[in-house]
Amino acid sequence: MLSTMQDVPLTVTRILKHGMAIHGTSQVTTWTGDAEPQRRTYRELGERTAQLAHALREDLGVEGDQRVATLMWNNAEHVEAYYAIPCMGAVLHTLNLRLPVEQLVFIVNHAADRVVIVNGSLLPLLAPLLPHLPTVEHIVVSGPGDRSVLEGARAQVHEYEELIAGKPVTYDWPELDERSAAAMCYTSGTTGDPKGVVYSHRSIYLHSMQVNMAQSMGLTDSDTSLVVVPQFHVNAWGLPHAVLMTGVNMLMPDRFLQPGPLAEMIEAEKPTHAAAVPTIWQGLLAELTAKPRDVSSLTQVTIGGSACPPSLMEAFDSLGMRVCHAWGMTETSPLGTIARPPAHAVGTEAELGYRLTQGRFPAGVEARLRGPADEFLPWDGESAGELEVRGPWIAGAYYGGAASGEAGGALRPEDKFSEDGWLKTGDVGVISSEGFLTLTDRAKDVIKSGGEWISSVELENALMAHPEVAEAAVVAVPDEKWGERPLATVVLKDGATADYAALKEFLAGKIARWQLPERWAIIPAVPKTSVGKFDKKVIRRQYAEGELEVTHV
Amino acid sequence: MLSTMQDVPLTVTRILKHGMAIHGTSQVTTWTGDAEPQRRTYRELGERTAQLAHALREDLGVEGDQRVATLMWNNAEHVEAYYAIPCMGAVLHTLNLRLPVEQLVFIVNHAADRVVIVNGSLLPLLAPLLPHLPTVEHIVVSGPGDRSVLEGARAQVHEYEELIAGKPVTYDWPELDERSAAAMCYTSGTTGDPKGVVYSHRSIYLHSMQVNMAQSMGLTDSDTSLVVVPQFHVNAWGLPHAVLMTGVNMLMPDRFLQPGPLAEMIEAEKPTHAAAVPTIWQGLLAELTAKPRDVSSLTQVTIGGSACPPSLMEAFDSLGMRVCHAWGMTETSPLGTIARPPAHAVGTEAELGYRLTQGRFPAGVEARLRGPADEFLPWDGESAGELEVRGPWIAGAYYGGAASGEAGGALRPEDKFSEDGWLKTGDVGVISSEGFLTLTDRAKDVIKSGGEWISSVELENALMAHPEVAEAAVVAVPDEKWGERPLATVVLKDGATADYAALKEFLAGKIARWQLPERWAIIPAVPKTSVGKFDKKVIRRQYAEGELEVTHV
Repeated sequence: MLSTMQDVPLTVTRILKHGMAIHGTSQVTTWTGDAEPQRRTYRELGERTAQLAHALREDLGVEGDQRVATLMWNNAEHVEAYYAIPCMGAVLHTLNLRLPVEQLVFIVNHAADRVVIVNGSLLPLLAPLLPHLPTVEHIVVSGPGDRSVLEGARAQVHEYEELIAGKPVTYDWPELDERSAAAMCYTSGTTGDPKGVVYSHRSIYLHSMQVNMAQSMGLTDSDTSLVVVPQFHVNAWGLPHAVLMTGVNMLMPDRFLQPGPLAEMIEAEKPTHAAAVPTIWQGLLAELTAKPRDVSSLTQVTIGGSACPPSLMEAFDSLGMRVCHAWGMTETSPLGTIARPPAHAVGTEAELGYRLTQGRFPAGVEARLRGPADEFLPWDGESAGELEVRGPWIAGAYYGGAASGEAGGALRPEDKFSEDGWLKTGDVGVISSEGFLTLTDRAKDVIKSGGEWISSVELENALMAHPEVAEAAVVAVPDEKWGERPLATVVLKDGATADYAALKEFLAGKIARWQLPERWAIIPAVPKTSVGKFDKKVIRRQYAEGELEVTHV
Repeated sequence: MLSTMQDVPLTVTRILKHGMAIHGTSQVTTWTGDAEPQRRTYRELGERTAQLAHALREDLGVEGDQRVATLMWNNAEHVEAYYAIPCMGAVLHTLNLRLPVEQLVFIVNHAADRVVIVNGSLLPLLAPLLPHLPTVEHIVVSGPGDRSVLEGARAQVHEYEELIAGKPVTYDWPELDERSAAAMCYTSGTTGDPKGVVYSHRSIYLHSMQVNMAQSMGLTDSDTSLVVVPQFHVNAWGLPHAVLMTGVNMLMPDRFLQPGPLAEMIEAEKPTHAAAVPTIWQGLLAELTAKPRDVSSLTQVTIGGSACPPSLMEAFDSLGMRVCHAWGMTETSPLGTIARPPAHAVGTEAELGYRLTQGRFPAGVEARLRGPADEFLPWDGESAGELEVRGPWIAGAYYGGAASGEAGGALRPEDKFSEDGWLKTGDVGVISSEGFLTLTDRAKDVIKSGGEWISSVELENALMAHPEVAEAAVVAVPDEKWGERPLATVVLKDGATADYAALKEFLAGKIARWQLPERWAIIPAVPKTSVGKFDKKVIRRQYAEGELEVTHV
């Protein structure tokens, strides 16, 4: 029996049209440092989006599903690219400006980007790579920055504003298949070459609806969202798409990501919501402690990317900024869970416990835990296994096949996707009977000690609760007797001195004694990946090569 | 370029699984009159859903996309039917128990229902129809009511609880095509035979996400929704589907829809949200005025079905119940607009004006206005035209073709659907530059006077603001000079006496003088359709046949 419903595709174009028609007066504000912020309504932004599409098609000859890359900060022009490129049928490829240059070269070539739209301030990063990017025919430069570094480039160089000036402010957007590619983002994995995730119009549309659900971020046109999470980082968690569905205003920090400017823009523009990884918030907290500002507008803070330390969550709570944990990855668009406490816990002592989990799975994301013996585990809050997820905004493959890299080609499809198509997240955790996920580790970071698992993350969180510890990373190191044992590397706060025995005793109250590390080292800072996550393979290498001063306690 | 996203269908089954897994402890409570309310968690409800599917498949032989009808009040068993039938691949057909019996017979036969699940209290309605329902092979009876009226029925009679008892509490739900039929509902049009709208799994899924968006109803598991709008009325506006996505609790009134029991269940069960047509709320308001209760829990009231009179909205505001207007129809699933005021109007004098419109179109619903000369009109808040809409939860056809009825077969496809597939709503209105819809009339109720349009609804609203007027209906009647002129029919409040000149003068301050009615009649009550809408064709007939005592003023 056929349904009688209209067959209307779920496309980014429909989001754009809706935003312009219904929320045309909502704004995207881009911070400019000392000058007046740049303000643009969604109607203006939509008109410039049409102009950009005309320029890409008519002047640069972008056709079909060709890839147009962006190497940009969070700003209005980047949002214009977010819509113009997919809505004309091409594919937006956001380049992570914090990737090692060899990885940037790899992904531009792998995606065969024809055009790169770049912020002027990032030309010093792009220019030296150009000789290694044979597919790039056009460079479009937006915003301040010295253009002279592009002299001698083989690719044609255009000015963004000149290119779009005078173009028609409407565009006859094609009706696209909702399953066609809209955007792509490469994972910055710590092993092997980056792997490309290709989002469809459908996946972006559905993810945007989910972001807007009341139990998710649930923003409305009364809100202004400070989008700190970069647009090259899983589409800024879907915010630039989600906001045009509901008219949420956006505040874009552009390149001003230091704690000082962030505090300043919060005080001046009064966002109600912000989204960023914990590292950024840790810096902001220090800034606000040193120099208090009026940040009272900011009541909801979405934190993801890595777990938020309890101490940080409580510190923000005390400032009136309510932190909401979320979990996701490039492969999950990224919303995989969000830690809204259940109704029965709100206002009780149990609430913080729920908020410190990774959260509940929203409608649309199915989850299961696979145990060490390949069996599926119960949701009992105790059985730890690798998390597998399924849903319409979850990746089921990588661009060009799972083993995309030649150099790092050790990745087999079965490492990332189950036989029945679920994503194997590589995250290890437990799920409670209420569906709350608590991640305990990365599958590759679990310490396998004498046939038992020790969570490196649990040890790190316990260590970071110590008043003299700034950061801590725990890795598995080989051990003759137990197979593996934990090595604790600790960054002390200014002026603190190492007392390993005291640290170990501090842990003993919280962690089973057999799990306590015997190996300790003070390090100046935890090595981080380009997106701010702990880069544990660097610590493991330093240990293996004897570069750490290890004390046995 | 292919996306790398998983291809996961959007099905009612996924909503059910999500509700059971993540919101298993949320509850549906069914009012039982004087006895303790029946309480059932979503986990229990899901288990009984599986049992019902087993019974329908194994005992009743329901296969493929066969239709299973429900003739039921709002209660937990009806929700079980909402999930069991579509999730097993069959099609849920909700029967409107307020339809004239000949229409009920027509739609059961038109849909070829094989099974009817019926509340015991509704058997007196069903039993006399059975001889005229040759496709119905099984009757499943749930809840109290005298079964003896079914004696001699050709169809097999089953008890709901006996049928599902002992069946497995899990079911191997099939993976369905998201575009396949899930449920159907016939429009109770005032002309011609009812027309069937067939919802797909996809349309229900997307509509549910929309209902849950913060700018829409935006409920969470902290909420309890009093679902007064009947489940046979456009799937109770999508609530029974939406709630399992977010864990909203439901309070179901069953057959206790009178103002007294409604006030009682609000006081006892403390819902935070309610959804119903204005008529119900008008009755509740009178009840609360006569006998105050603690209804302070109820802060959000979604009103749709027909426009909410301003006086009613203000009266509810003063009780702390914030009314939110919504507009939709059977063909729109039904959410077509929702009247959340824009951020800039919140807390200002302009706010009520926005709330009295039909509201804004949510993401997913595209709209346009078609003028008298078939041209598309601007969104300027002044140009009135017929509203046309498009979207993934909007009907593009009727079951069995647009002209479904033999008797009333005057309906041609082009009357309801444009050449490019948009739904012609039959509603006339204006859209503001911010996308707020104000309906001024039904296309067929507009009064065409001397080449200009007069809105019957505008006159009615102005009349109903008069302190002595309980209700008013305005219809077009033939006029030699002007073609058509308005006839005002008025229901006076108890004790009031008719003073037509005063009423006309009251209008004169609000309505252009040339639009004022010259013909007036007092009537005891406005005739209503089965879903409580003004049935103007009855008034027109009464006028034509001289049954009204008309005074010229």
